[in-house]
Amino acid sequence: MSLFPKDEYLDRLRKTKISMADAGLDILVVSDPANMNYLTGYDGWSFYVPQCVVVANDEDQPLWIGRGMDAAGARHTTFLQAENIIGYPDDYVQNPSKHPMNFVADQIKDRRWDKRTIGVEMDAYYFSARGFLAFQKDLPQADIKDGNLLVSWVRLVKSDAEIGFMQQAGKISEKVMQTALDNLSPGVRECDAVAAVYQAQMAGLPEFGGDYPAIVPMMPTGEKTSAPHLTWTDEPYENNQAVNLELAACRHRYHAPLARTAYLGKNPPEKLTHLAEHTVEGLNLTLDAIKPGLHCEEVELVWRQHIAKAGLEKESRIGYAMGLNYPPDWGEHTASLRPGDKTVLAPNMTFHMILGMWMENYGFECSESFRITETGCETLADFPRKLFLISS
Amino acid sequence: MSLFPKDEYLDRLRKTKISMADAGLDILVVSDPANMNYLTGYDGWSFYVPQCVVVANDEDQPLWIGRGMDAAGARHTTFLQAENIIGYPDDYVQNPSKHPMNFVADQIKDRRWDKRTIGVEMDAYYFSARGFLAFQKDLPQADIKDGNLLVSWVRLVKSDAEIGFMQQAGKISEKVMQTALDNLSPGVRECDAVAAVYQAQMAGLPEFGGDYPAIVPMMPTGEKTSAPHLTWTDEPYENNQAVNLELAACRHRYHAPLARTAYLGKNPPEKLTHLAEHTVEGLNLTLDAIKPGLHCEEVELVWRQHIAKAGLEKESRIGYAMGLNYPPDWGEHTASLRPGDKTVLAPNMTFHMILGMWMENYGFECSESFRITETGCETLADFPRKLFLISS
Repeated sequence: MSLFPKDEYLDRLRKTKISMADAGLDILVVSDPANMNYLTGYDGWSFYVPQCVVVANDEDQPLWIGRGMDAAGARHTTFLQAENIIGYPDDYVQNPSKHPMNFVADQIKDRRWDKRTIGVEMDAYYFSARGFLAFQKDLPQADIKDGNLLVSWVRLVKSDAEIGFMQQAGKISEKVMQTALDNLSPGVRECDAVAAVYQAQMAGLPEFGGDYPAIVPMMPTGEKTSAPHLTWTDEPYENNQAVNLELAACRHRYHAPLARTAYLGKNPPEKLTHLAEHTVEGLNLTLDAIKPGLHCEEVELVWRQHIAKAGLEKESRIGYAMGLNYPPDWGEHTASLRPGDKTVLAPNMTFHMILGMWMENYGFECSESFRITETGCETLADFPRKLFLISS
Repeated sequence: MSLFPKDEYLDRLRKTKISMADAGLDILVVSDPANMNYLTGYDGWSFYVPQCVVVANDEDQPLWIGRGMDAAGARHTTFLQAENIIGYPDDYVQNPSKHPMNFVADQIKDRRWDKRTIGVEMDAYYFSARGFLAFQKDLPQADIKDGNLLVSWVRLVKSDAEIGFMQQAGKISEKVMQTALDNLSPGVRECDAVAAVYQAQMAGLPEFGGDYPAIVPMMPTGEKTSAPHLTWTDEPYENNQAVNLELAACRHRYHAPLARTAYLGKNPPEKLTHLAEHTVEGLNLTLDAIKPGLHCEEVELVWRQHIAKAGLEKESRIGYAMGLNYPPDWGEHTASLRPGDKTVLAPNMTFHMILGMWMENYGFECSESFRITETGCETLADFPRKLFLISS
């Protein structure tokens, strides 16, 4: 049973085929697990072996091609008819002398699609250089082009059903953040606080459970706050330190990231409270300014102009499109809230706006996940925006 | 501070350079996050953007090249001297007009290495087809070859220090499995049982905490046991059903996977208890037979011959080398316990042997992670091998 009704997948395929026509593609080989899920419903931890969904512009349903043992999972989770689910023999797995993309090429030849224009996702995580060369070599008559992010751009505007799952993820993210704050205390090992966060992420709420987010919880403190992607240690949290909380919740692979900053102690440095005030004010102002029709870069400008008044600036982008995804990233790699991005905001686009302000030896971050509405935007979570003080 | 002393990394580099010489490589560009960690200590959740470690056969220390904001993480976690840590500007990230591998190629040209023979990991998860073409185009005078798995093969034999972390992971895995069994009960939602397992994985033990395993917990039941890589739902476990428990623990990125099967109810079907007995007997016999000097395929043969007596067979491999890793897989993609694999077992190689027996509508699985010793093998965990009966 696929998660959404069959009609929703057919509508996604219809939009994908329009984009394929615009790009001059007859066939699209989709390797990104989020794009595979989006087009068929397929959901399994099998992306550690090559697999794909193949969309042909003149076929009603795409093909799912994956490892033989995962065909059962495809039957469980996709809307596809049985004959469109094709498993490759197990000896293609981790074999120096043949590659699963050789099998995919054979499937294309069997269907006489090998003289057509075929798109592949050249920069997708799980489409390797070796797989590309194997595919190209086996299809000498095909015109192989880059179809990277084509489906990701179709995903930019969510359906109401997708928004429903993101709102559920948003509700879970409130519990996740509260759990993190409740477990932060001087003397508590980082791994124990992280363990409580994981528990909350997966248990979710009594009404609906959680799913694994595409990125692990990040809760650095002290010196490590200057290194954004380090994970946790066995060390205890210490008094008079700030802790960044970059967390998320996930529901049926749909994400709601949420970041806050806490301070362990009653008396945070004044420069930190000032930074927190300016940043939260900028976040509030920027969220208030968002409405359909704006360009992404115009959203960023609201923020940029606000913090300039406080003598601050932020080099990196302040947000990005997100939603359905798998490790290692919940971002969709399409629209970004940054200078130069002319993407026009439209209802049911969903973003994570994260304002991380890193000074020489202190910092503050606060984020919201939100969807664009008919008139503005609405956040997925409802959680106070401030520097949280934790006094033991 | 790198996890291991500098000398251990230098020894790993020495072995890597020997393999590079055998393969005719002057330079090796290492994109696999486990291989990057192995050679330098680098540990961060930053593999969602292109990054690499570059080993030159005539340089003492490799280069770490990654996103600018992650250079701080490289300074925290590697043994490298500051000038060998090179961050690329943020506008290389998700930019259609340039790719981080263009930056890597520039670094190679700056060092006049661009007429040499350069290996890249053609089938690594995070080395994309686009990155490969960008690199190749920028280095027209280089002889670019496939260096896939070269470092992974060096990783096959672990140091005593690495074994120490795997033994710690093994101790945590006992607690993880017991937590799973303690939380399985009819009426408990799958997501709640999984949440308890995650909690145990990350909290670890009072003496040492846990790290995130490279694969999520798999605890399917009922019909879904036939589809090996589906994750959990909100549905409650039901009475008179078997549950597969494919779990693991991780310590400083070193894994100890552990699988068992439980049955919810007092009276499992006789065919299931028989299957469990044969499988556990086969596992015990096979572990007893393992010793240095055997070929991987000879280990598999012991198992194959044993279960043939019970009229059973298993098509897929029964085990694989594992240790240090990142999502999406803890397997090392090198030696496998399967027919045709002539890898000779040697002390401090580490494997996960997983005997998953799947019949039409029931199944049983039991696994052990172990290291080869001077005279045999020793498991990382000490946990009963049997079908666990859970009666409420």
